[in-house]
Amino acid sequence: MIPFNKPHLTGKEAHYIYDAVRSGKISGNGKYTKLCHEFFEDKYNYQKCLLTTSCTDALEMASILIDIQPGDEVIMPSYTFVSTANAFILRGAVIKFVDSRKDHPGIDESKIEELINDKTKAIIPVHYAGVACDMDIIMDIAKKHNLFVIEDAAQAIDNYFIDKNGIKKPLGSIGHLAAFSFHETKNIISGEGGMLVINDERFIERAEIIWEKGTNRSAFFRGEVDKYGWVDVGSSFLPSDIIAAFLYAQLEELSIIQNRRIEIWKIYYDGLKDWATKNDVKLPSLPKFSTNNAHMFYMVFESIDERNKIINKLKAKNILSVFHYLSLHKSPFYKSKHDGRTLENSDNYSDRLLRLPFYVELTNPEIDTIIQVIKS
Amino acid sequence: MIPFNKPHLTGKEAHYIYDAVRSGKISGNGKYTKLCHEFFEDKYNYQKCLLTTSCTDALEMASILIDIQPGDEVIMPSYTFVSTANAFILRGAVIKFVDSRKDHPGIDESKIEELINDKTKAIIPVHYAGVACDMDIIMDIAKKHNLFVIEDAAQAIDNYFIDKNGIKKPLGSIGHLAAFSFHETKNIISGEGGMLVINDERFIERAEIIWEKGTNRSAFFRGEVDKYGWVDVGSSFLPSDIIAAFLYAQLEELSIIQNRRIEIWKIYYDGLKDWATKNDVKLPSLPKFSTNNAHMFYMVFESIDERNKIINKLKAKNILSVFHYLSLHKSPFYKSKHDGRTLENSDNYSDRLLRLPFYVELTNPEIDTIIQVIKS
Repeated sequence: MIPFNKPHLTGKEAHYIYDAVRSGKISGNGKYTKLCHEFFEDKYNYQKCLLTTSCTDALEMASILIDIQPGDEVIMPSYTFVSTANAFILRGAVIKFVDSRKDHPGIDESKIEELINDKTKAIIPVHYAGVACDMDIIMDIAKKHNLFVIEDAAQAIDNYFIDKNGIKKPLGSIGHLAAFSFHETKNIISGEGGMLVINDERFIERAEIIWEKGTNRSAFFRGEVDKYGWVDVGSSFLPSDIIAAFLYAQLEELSIIQNRRIEIWKIYYDGLKDWATKNDVKLPSLPKFSTNNAHMFYMVFESIDERNKIINKLKAKNILSVFHYLSLHKSPFYKSKHDGRTLENSDNYSDRLLRLPFYVELTNPEIDTIIQVIKS
Repeated sequence: MIPFNKPHLTGKEAHYIYDAVRSGKISGNGKYTKLCHEFFEDKYNYQKCLLTTSCTDALEMASILIDIQPGDEVIMPSYTFVSTANAFILRGAVIKFVDSRKDHPGIDESKIEELINDKTKAIIPVHYAGVACDMDIIMDIAKKHNLFVIEDAAQAIDNYFIDKNGIKKPLGSIGHLAAFSFHETKNIISGEGGMLVINDERFIERAEIIWEKGTNRSAFFRGEVDKYGWVDVGSSFLPSDIIAAFLYAQLEELSIIQNRRIEIWKIYYDGLKDWATKNDVKLPSLPKFSTNNAHMFYMVFESIDERNKIINKLKAKNILSVFHYLSLHKSPFYKSKHDGRTLENSDNYSDRLLRLPFYVELTNPEIDTIIQVIKS
């Protein structure tokens, strides 16, 4: 039996959890939370990081920070997770869904500008499969129309956008804000978990307040105010330090994890590329402006039937492959609210994209088996 | 050095966390989440339980479930944690703050009805220090005016309300909804963590959807629908199963933890009662309609100066005692929104209430030392 996903352990998780508990501080913003923040700020030059209980919650923080008001419009791809949209809908936003690129499930940058009007407040590029959206184009549009950009970087840890000058920029460092996920299906995990990255310093002070239930508790602990109180809206966005301890053990082995994932990705790619070309199956295409963090390996078939045939063939050999999002503009919740535009590529990816098993413990012989079953 | 709080470990937490990780399922709604739900549903007869990442999040779920709309009014004590209010303010509610009882920091039930009007949607009794509010009176008012009651039971695990017929009802089982906390300062902990209890079955189906990011994923996994999608608003309210594993280890020793806490409470009470009477200091008063879950031991002084004198005296002996809430109606965030009513008891508790160190590992000699320092 080869599952679709298996959480990878570095071996130090329990040790750090013990240490957190011994320290007498297992609520939020403890020792390991701070270590995780420092890790990300140092490695990727993010201005400010705040761990959250989920990527969903990081997006909700972003939605509060840019002060979404009822009726504000937010632009995002339809081919994304429900949380990308819910985080803004909870604040009263109207979502304008954009189609995916033909060559990639990421947002079609060329279709953003036509949706912008006086009510538009933000663009949410989703780095699908960890692959960068064209952030040069998106940031230019945002600048021109005075919009916020919030990167949904749920899958994009340790990946880079290569800008028009050839400069590599870490994903999550380009938009005003960015949200990451450490859900058990991601490269680096903590079961559930996420992080908000703040690159626009106007948001830093308020982000800390919203994170701490609307209180200025962080400033209090730094000795900047002599007592703390209720100063703003907010929620309990902080994860337990148990979660941060688990996450920190993972971060220490980030490069080992990433090296193995990139190996797995290449074995899949090399093993399948000739067969794919012959059979009109598309393998992941990496645009020239993105590096590869090997978050997932997917294939896009010519039809839903072709995809289902492969799912069943793999299943018969006890190998679990799974499809992914269903276009949000066609969902039971949003279809009556959508403005009627056809989003063909998004619908195609909903019907035709298939993800193969992908986790660090997946062995080379197992990958070969999967490739052989697909080819047979 | 005697801290104010020290997280108590039963010893099985790491074992269960290992087990959760080995099972390959550490995201939300895994094996330990289900065990925790069953524990609470069986022991306290709650209709439906859903673990959340915090009590704050449980209150936010409640706020979405009762469909708070901008301008709706919600009644709650001013002497409470900011999250009691924020959860409703995030949905656009106006908060009508009520004073505390003279004999207890809980909501003054006699001052609720005068605040009810056409816009009122819910009453939020907060069981301060775990001690029950008079739920007979509150439920009668709610019934008469067709309001929802959401128990803020953050501190009220394993405690009971004794109704007018002498029947013991678990706190959290009486209102339409209830929210619990497992923050590291509570009797039963998971670092950060909480739980929503649903006692009104009209809310059960939607609660599961909101919990799962607005999708019908829970119904899908039970085989009730053949695929799941976006059907409602929602958030990622589920904690990692790592957190649930930790929590379950605690729940298995609930009675041991509770017995020791009740012992500690009694030693404080017996050791301080004569001195308190002589010095016009009030010890916790248990109304006849509440049992005692020994969540905290507090004293109420005649003035802020008296309180601060004791804080400093204890501090000089390396003993940490702490005050608690500041009236929310006077907070920087809400004072301009408050309707101007004076809430005298709430302000008094803000100024005069002091909490003593309280945790399972606190030894009898340490408690005696604390009592002697206070008396001296």
